[in-house]
Amino acid sequence: MSKLKFCELKEHFNEEVVLKGFIDNLRDLQYVQFLVLRDRTGKIQVTIEKNDDNKELNEIVSNLTLESVVTVTGKLLENEKVKLNGMEVIPASIEVNSRSENELPINYKDKNNTLLDTRLDYRFLDLRNEKNILMFRVQSAFVQGMRDYLYENEFTEIHTPKLIAAASESGSDVFEVKYFENKAYLAQSPQFYKQMAMAAGFEKVFEVAPAFRAENSNTNRHTTEFTSFDLEFSYIKDFTEVMDLEEELLIAGLTKVKELYGEKIKEMFGEEIIIPTRPFPRIKLHDLYKELEKRYGYNIPTEDVGDMNAEAEKLTGRFAKEVYGHEFIFVTDYSAKKRAFYHMRKDGIPQGYDLIWKGMEITTGAQREHRYDVLKAQCDEKGLGKDVEFYLEFFKYGCPPHGGFALGIDRITMLMLGMPNLKETMFLFRGPNRITP
Amino acid sequence: MSKLKFCELKEHFNEEVVLKGFIDNLRDLQYVQFLVLRDRTGKIQVTIEKNDDNKELNEIVSNLTLESVVTVTGKLLENEKVKLNGMEVIPASIEVNSRSENELPINYKDKNNTLLDTRLDYRFLDLRNEKNILMFRVQSAFVQGMRDYLYENEFTEIHTPKLIAAASESGSDVFEVKYFENKAYLAQSPQFYKQMAMAAGFEKVFEVAPAFRAENSNTNRHTTEFTSFDLEFSYIKDFTEVMDLEEELLIAGLTKVKELYGEKIKEMFGEEIIIPTRPFPRIKLHDLYKELEKRYGYNIPTEDVGDMNAEAEKLTGRFAKEVYGHEFIFVTDYSAKKRAFYHMRKDGIPQGYDLIWKGMEITTGAQREHRYDVLKAQCDEKGLGKDVEFYLEFFKYGCPPHGGFALGIDRITMLMLGMPNLKETMFLFRGPNRITP
Repeated sequence: MSKLKFCELKEHFNEEVVLKGFIDNLRDLQYVQFLVLRDRTGKIQVTIEKNDDNKELNEIVSNLTLESVVTVTGKLLENEKVKLNGMEVIPASIEVNSRSENELPINYKDKNNTLLDTRLDYRFLDLRNEKNILMFRVQSAFVQGMRDYLYENEFTEIHTPKLIAAASESGSDVFEVKYFENKAYLAQSPQFYKQMAMAAGFEKVFEVAPAFRAENSNTNRHTTEFTSFDLEFSYIKDFTEVMDLEEELLIAGLTKVKELYGEKIKEMFGEEIIIPTRPFPRIKLHDLYKELEKRYGYNIPTEDVGDMNAEAEKLTGRFAKEVYGHEFIFVTDYSAKKRAFYHMRKDGIPQGYDLIWKGMEITTGAQREHRYDVLKAQCDEKGLGKDVEFYLEFFKYGCPPHGGFALGIDRITMLMLGMPNLKETMFLFRGPNRITP
Repeated sequence: MSKLKFCELKEHFNEEVVLKGFIDNLRDLQYVQFLVLRDRTGKIQVTIEKNDDNKELNEIVSNLTLESVVTVTGKLLENEKVKLNGMEVIPASIEVNSRSENELPINYKDKNNTLLDTRLDYRFLDLRNEKNILMFRVQSAFVQGMRDYLYENEFTEIHTPKLIAAASESGSDVFEVKYFENKAYLAQSPQFYKQMAMAAGFEKVFEVAPAFRAENSNTNRHTTEFTSFDLEFSYIKDFTEVMDLEEELLIAGLTKVKELYGEKIKEMFGEEIIIPTRPFPRIKLHDLYKELEKRYGYNIPTEDVGDMNAEAEKLTGRFAKEVYGHEFIFVTDYSAKKRAFYHMRKDGIPQGYDLIWKGMEITTGAQREHRYDVLKAQCDEKGLGKDVEFYLEFFKYGCPPHGGFALGIDRITMLMLGMPNLKETMFLFRGPNRITP
C-alpha cells in the first residue's frame, strides 16, 4: 500500500527511494545505461553508469527486457539535464520481480500500428497505454461522483438478479441460459426490479450492474454487455423531477472528474470537461423536428416519426450547442408507439424523455405508470402477455408514483473522452464476434 | 425529492405538512377514523373525526384499503395521548395515489405466518417488512463505507465482463449461455480479469458485481447468483498486506453501518455492530486443528484435512470469541491441494487465508502467483488445460506482484444482522429451484 507514486517524486529529492514499476524504456550505451520506469501515475529515469562499482547492476540491466517489472532502490536526485521531469534515480539495487518476454505481440503505445481487433486480443497490453489507464480512472471517478450524490440524497444501492425467468421487456434480444433442467435468461435491464423496489417501499434506489443485449449488430455503439447505472425514486409529482435529478447527478459526476483529472484529460485526450449549467435545455420532439428542418434541412424518415435516430441525435447535439451553448439537451414528448409500455402517459403523450449529450442519446427516463389498470391496458396494447404478468403483480397492492432512468456508463465515458468507439472504451468489449479474452 | 421523512416530523409541529406513504393501519370507529401512514423511515397517525365538516374525508377513508398509497395534507400536532410517537395529523385532504386490493396474498408483518417460499413468491410485499427495508439500507451503507475507503486509497472501480468464453476457474458449476451461434458461460468470479488489470498496470482495482455458480445445492448459504465485492492490488510484499487491507476495509464498512444504523439494528435485529480491533487474530490451520481438538474435542474429517468445513468454521468462530474476544479470525496455511492454482506458494504453502466471521467463512484472499513459469506449473499440476491459456498469457510480459480477495456481500449482510439464511437476505434470491419473480 505504501508504493511511492511517480507523480509525487518531487517531494523526495535527495532521499533514498524504493521505486516499483514497469520498464518503459531501456538504453544500454557505451558508458551509461538508462532505464525509464513507469507506474500508473508517471515515469522516472534511472541512470546507471558503467563502471567497476556498478558491475552487478550493469549486468542486471544488460539482461533486462522492456515491460519487465522491477523494484529499484536508490537515491533520487534533481537534475535539470534529464528531460524526463528533471530528475533521476541513481540505483543501489535493482530487483526483477517479473520478466517480460523479449517481443511484445502488439505495440500498445501506438494505436495506429495495430489492428483494433488484434489490440483487443491483447487487451491486457493495450490497456497499458497511458490514455487507457487514465480512461478507467476517469470512469471510476465519474461513477464515484454520482454515487456520492445519491448517498447524500439517501438512495439505497440494490443488487437485482441478472438471471431471470422471462424476457425483461421486449422478449427479443435476450440471451438464453441453461439453468439446470430449465431455461433462464439474462436481464436486459433492472427496470422491473427497481420498480419492484418502489412497490416494496424502498423509495429511492440505484444499481450499477451489467446489462445484457443479444443484439447481432456491429456498430461503434453496440455491445452485448455493458454497465448500466440505474435509478428509480418514489413520490415524484411528474417527470420533470426525474430530469432535475439527472441534471444534478451528471453535474456531480462531471465535477468529480474535472476535479481529479480535468487537466490530465485536456492534455491526453484534448477534451475539455465542461460542467453543464442548469437547467439543461428541454425541447419537445415535435418542435425539435421543426428546428432540424429549418436549420439543417433535415426531415425525420417516416419510419422514425415519433422517435429519433442516430442522424437526428447528431444534429440535435449541434442544435443544442449552437442555440443554447449547451452540450446536453432533453427531448420530450415522444410517440407512445415508440416508447416502452411502462411509461406513464398524459393525454396519450409519454411522460418521459431522452437525454442527448454531444449528439448521442445517453439516457431514457420517465415517470412510470404505477396504476395497475392503466398499466395493464398499456401492456395489452403492446401485445405483451405472460412474461410481464409477474411484473404487473407489483402494482396491485399499492405502489407510490415513481420515475427513473438509466445511463450506460461505457457510452458516457466514450463521449466524455472523445473515444472513437465503445470497443476501446470498455475494459473488455463484448460483441457478437467477440467474447475473449 | 422533497418528501418529508416520517422520522423527522418532530421538527414540524404545528405546521401544514404533506405526508406521502402507505396505509399501514386503518380503524374506522363510530366517532373517529384512524389511519397510520408508513414510509421507509417511520409511521405517523392521521386522525379524522366523523362529523359533517369531514364528510368528504370520512367517505374517502371508509373506502380506503390497507397498503394503499396516499398523500395526506394537514396540520401536524403534538399529542401525548397518541401512542404512536406522541403526534398526529389532522388532515385537510387525502388523495389516493394507488389503491391496494383488499386482501394481501401474504401477511408480510408476520414472518412466521407464511411459508418462506410463499414469501419469496411475493417478495415485493415481503420486503415491506420494516426489518427488510432496514436490511438493504444497512447493506448499502456497508458497501458505501468500503467503497469510500477504497476511493481514498486510490483504487479504481472496474467492470469486467460476465459473459466469458470458458469456465473461469474450475470448469464445473458454470452456467452455459447460448451466444448467437456459439456458447458462452457466466463468470463465477472476476478473478482472472482483476488480475488482468494488474498485468495492465492498473495497480489497485475493485469491482462490485454479480457472480454466478451453477451449484445444485440447497443450503442456507448457497445461491446461484450473488453480489461479489472483489479487489486486487499490486506491489505487495506478501499476503499479510492483503489481510491488513481487508481489516481496514471491513472496519470502514462496519463503522459506516454503526454510524448510520447501529441503534436501529440493535432495536430491530437485536444485533450489536462491533467495530473489530486490529489486528484480527491470525492462526495457522495446523495450530487451529490442535486447538479445536483440545478445546472442543473436534477432529477434522480425513477428506477435509488441509481445509475447513462448516462445522470447523463454526467452532473456529467460537474459539476466536473465547480466546481472543474477537468476532473475526484469519486462518492461514491451508493445503495447496485445497487451494486454487493461482495462489502463490512458499515452501509449498499457499500464501493466503480464509477469514471467518461469527463462525462462517466470508473471504478467501491470497498473494497471487505472478511468475509465468511457476504459475504454469501450478496450473498443470491441477490438470487445467486450454481454458486457462488466455489467462496465463497475462503473465508473460511483466506483471507486478499482487494479491486480493473477494467478499460475498449477501453473506456478510446475513451474518451482520443475524439473518437465518441467504434466501431472506437477498433482494431476490436465486437457487436451483427459484428463478422468480
